[in-house]
Amino acid sequence: MDMIFIELQKHSDTPLYLQIYNQIKQDIIDGKFPVGMKLPSKRRLEEFLNVSQTTIEMAYDQLTAEGFIAAEPRKGYFVQAIEELAYVQPVKSEMPASVPTATPVQYDFSPGSIDTENFPFTAWRKYARDIMDTAHAHLLLLGDPHGDIELRQEIRRYLYHSRGVDCTPDQIIVGSGTEQLLPLIIRILGEQACYAIEDPGYLMTRHVFSENSRQMIPVAVDEDGLDVKALQRSNATIAYVTPSHQFPTGTVLTAARRTALLNWAATNPEFFIIEDDYDSEFRYRGRPIPSLQSMDKGENVIYLSTFTKSLMPSMRIAYMVLPPLLLDAYRQAFIPYSSSVPRIDQHILARFMADGQFSRHLNRMRKIYRRKMHVLTTLLRSYEPAISFSGDEAGMHVLLHVHTEATEKELIREALQSGIKVRGLETYRVTPAPSSPSFLIGFGGLSEEEINIAVPKLLEAWNIKKAAAPD
Amino acid sequence: MDMIFIELQKHSDTPLYLQIYNQIKQDIIDGKFPVGMKLPSKRRLEEFLNVSQTTIEMAYDQLTAEGFIAAEPRKGYFVQAIEELAYVQPVKSEMPASVPTATPVQYDFSPGSIDTENFPFTAWRKYARDIMDTAHAHLLLLGDPHGDIELRQEIRRYLYHSRGVDCTPDQIIVGSGTEQLLPLIIRILGEQACYAIEDPGYLMTRHVFSENSRQMIPVAVDEDGLDVKALQRSNATIAYVTPSHQFPTGTVLTAARRTALLNWAATNPEFFIIEDDYDSEFRYRGRPIPSLQSMDKGENVIYLSTFTKSLMPSMRIAYMVLPPLLLDAYRQAFIPYSSSVPRIDQHILARFMADGQFSRHLNRMRKIYRRKMHVLTTLLRSYEPAISFSGDEAGMHVLLHVHTEATEKELIREALQSGIKVRGLETYRVTPAPSSPSFLIGFGGLSEEEINIAVPKLLEAWNIKKAAAPD
Repeated sequence: MDMIFIELQKHSDTPLYLQIYNQIKQDIIDGKFPVGMKLPSKRRLEEFLNVSQTTIEMAYDQLTAEGFIAAEPRKGYFVQAIEELAYVQPVKSEMPASVPTATPVQYDFSPGSIDTENFPFTAWRKYARDIMDTAHAHLLLLGDPHGDIELRQEIRRYLYHSRGVDCTPDQIIVGSGTEQLLPLIIRILGEQACYAIEDPGYLMTRHVFSENSRQMIPVAVDEDGLDVKALQRSNATIAYVTPSHQFPTGTVLTAARRTALLNWAATNPEFFIIEDDYDSEFRYRGRPIPSLQSMDKGENVIYLSTFTKSLMPSMRIAYMVLPPLLLDAYRQAFIPYSSSVPRIDQHILARFMADGQFSRHLNRMRKIYRRKMHVLTTLLRSYEPAISFSGDEAGMHVLLHVHTEATEKELIREALQSGIKVRGLETYRVTPAPSSPSFLIGFGGLSEEEINIAVPKLLEAWNIKKAAAPD
Repeated sequence: MDMIFIELQKHSDTPLYLQIYNQIKQDIIDGKFPVGMKLPSKRRLEEFLNVSQTTIEMAYDQLTAEGFIAAEPRKGYFVQAIEELAYVQPVKSEMPASVPTATPVQYDFSPGSIDTENFPFTAWRKYARDIMDTAHAHLLLLGDPHGDIELRQEIRRYLYHSRGVDCTPDQIIVGSGTEQLLPLIIRILGEQACYAIEDPGYLMTRHVFSENSRQMIPVAVDEDGLDVKALQRSNATIAYVTPSHQFPTGTVLTAARRTALLNWAATNPEFFIIEDDYDSEFRYRGRPIPSLQSMDKGENVIYLSTFTKSLMPSMRIAYMVLPPLLLDAYRQAFIPYSSSVPRIDQHILARFMADGQFSRHLNRMRKIYRRKMHVLTTLLRSYEPAISFSGDEAGMHVLLHVHTEATEKELIREALQSGIKVRGLETYRVTPAPSSPSFLIGFGGLSEEEINIAVPKLLEAWNIKKAAAPD
């Protein structure tokens, strides 16, 4: 079949994608579209119906998700036999999937995205090919529950050279993400532990603590990082911090506060610091900030990091370095669990690191992100003083402050109407704070060209003009 | 340096590997072995010292783990700079790593092992090569938290055709293992839920329930599977069962009990069955046993399975099928978590399945395991009636009963002294039961030749003779 007939009501309350979804689904149920029929490609349907790519994608995704159609790699979408569909949901006006925004998002300043254009696929494939071989058939079986020694050795070497982290490979536990490692830490620290969390801070961490019914005390973050005096006054026994590039404010914990924080932890053998060094790889100005773990000699600091920013978020490899004291407790507590990270992936990564590919990749990406950061901050600067920004020393996002009467919510809505997605700082706060609207501007996933288009578009949406050039 | 000097005291209390470890370590600390020095290969040192491969491996592994030496792929082991070693542990007589048994294990009847000889690496590499490509750069970013749709579709198709499981891809959640999925189920079922567990049963499951402070009621397993009458009398609200091939007894839940179990669950909307279908792929006799989920139409059954047996344990891909009722609860409860399974792996597997490679692999492996099962049971039969066995209709282990006065512990020790590792049934029991010593005889990881050698060796260790051939 060349094209399918779909009648769209462009001014209906029902979103376009839902209209497309409903009509195709009904035609399949009615048998008008026979099993095995090839649907038009997304692009052709998009042109034919004169709708956006996103609209077609959402309709096809939903049909796929519900089993009405299926994608065959490099061939297209085909109608499936619906007798196989055990559970045909009644057509509802509301979709279970994400509800589309009025305007499709064209530019997403997501702080969690990375540059995917420059990933060294060739090298990665090479190591994958080497590992996926009968010579390594033993890697099909379960490995070390803490992560295979080859990978832990490479992580140790990397941590020592790049972050000054002092540890043996024994102290390293590899896991599939901070979400997976943090509950393990929580369990060995016991039910009585009380967690100081940064406010504003990382939402997922807060979720993990609350899901595990742990007591939390929000401690304010200012321009010097976590307010350690407030921590000292609190009942917290564990401090969860992101000292190298605080999430989400981007501040770097000052040297004085680092010392104060370590001194706090040293006052009581039950006190620990969880140092989440989530994006320390990319630092653009100033001298490197040593990890707390390296200052502490590793007795009171649980160091936590991930390959999410440095390689890819979807690989799901993170790790923690346990102080010797906690290592024994850990060993006793989690004996029956296997490592959550696929062994083949561990060995691909270990070789990638051992051959120096990882440090080469980091050096290359540091340059790329530095350039992006430069493009972003140069643009932003031209709008000062109507706006200001901070947190640009490191990482893959800055915090943008808008000096206006409008609220964060209003500005987020205005941005969305221009097809731009930004995240407001308020979402990350436990305690509401009176401050001008602030936004996380993540640039990792955008190209320089996209930054060059999206930033002026965003500020235009907010009706913020460039400062007049000085005479 | 060609060879290193190590003095071994073969009759010392200190294990040989520890003597080797201590001397190399001391020579590195004393500077006798300079940084960068290449150590002799494991094989050469083994020959030179006339010790077992395992001994050298354990010594080198420990030295590696503590950072004194490091392996360079395809080059060998090299002495590392010990200034880099932040945390040089004092030499102890006790090692933190696993303590060696007197006799190295030659044959391990592990129920968790699989055949690694016949893995289709060529096909797997092909899909890996296709996916690890700039054309799929978007796969570096996070995907669907429930698992990418491409994989969930293939799992749905597979489940429908091979297990009669009725579901939409929406109901499927992909995770890195039963260990990771079960806590998620536990949370949505609430704190009041009370879990019936099979006795004897899977240890890891029990650990997860207890770690999550959930109430457990052991329910006995007999030759027909779980005692459903005992379940009905109990206060349990959730039944965790392995109906297709009970772990560890290998029994198949009878049709009458299946119906009774489903009827039990239907008596109360708060009642659910967790059906762990961990090794249903390999069935050798009798007609296929339908999944409980398929009998129930999926309203009261949470179906749980994994690719551990069918592909590899180390890939860490498992999945669950939630009944519609629990799906909403799940969606609300776990919004902030990313999928724990690497996205590239998900797509390699999805293509492997979509192209029919998975079903081909299963058919091939079924033949291989059937042959192994045949070799094993033919051998065992020749020792009857001094022994008996059960659970040979399916899966990758049988349960061996030894009719003797000796205890399980004694027989395990005797087997170990002959270099054979077996696991006793008692370990898997909550409630001690008077029965003859019984052992899990897993054969997945042994070749036919190894089975042919190891079984007579095991029975010889126990002093059990073949029955006289009939006249």
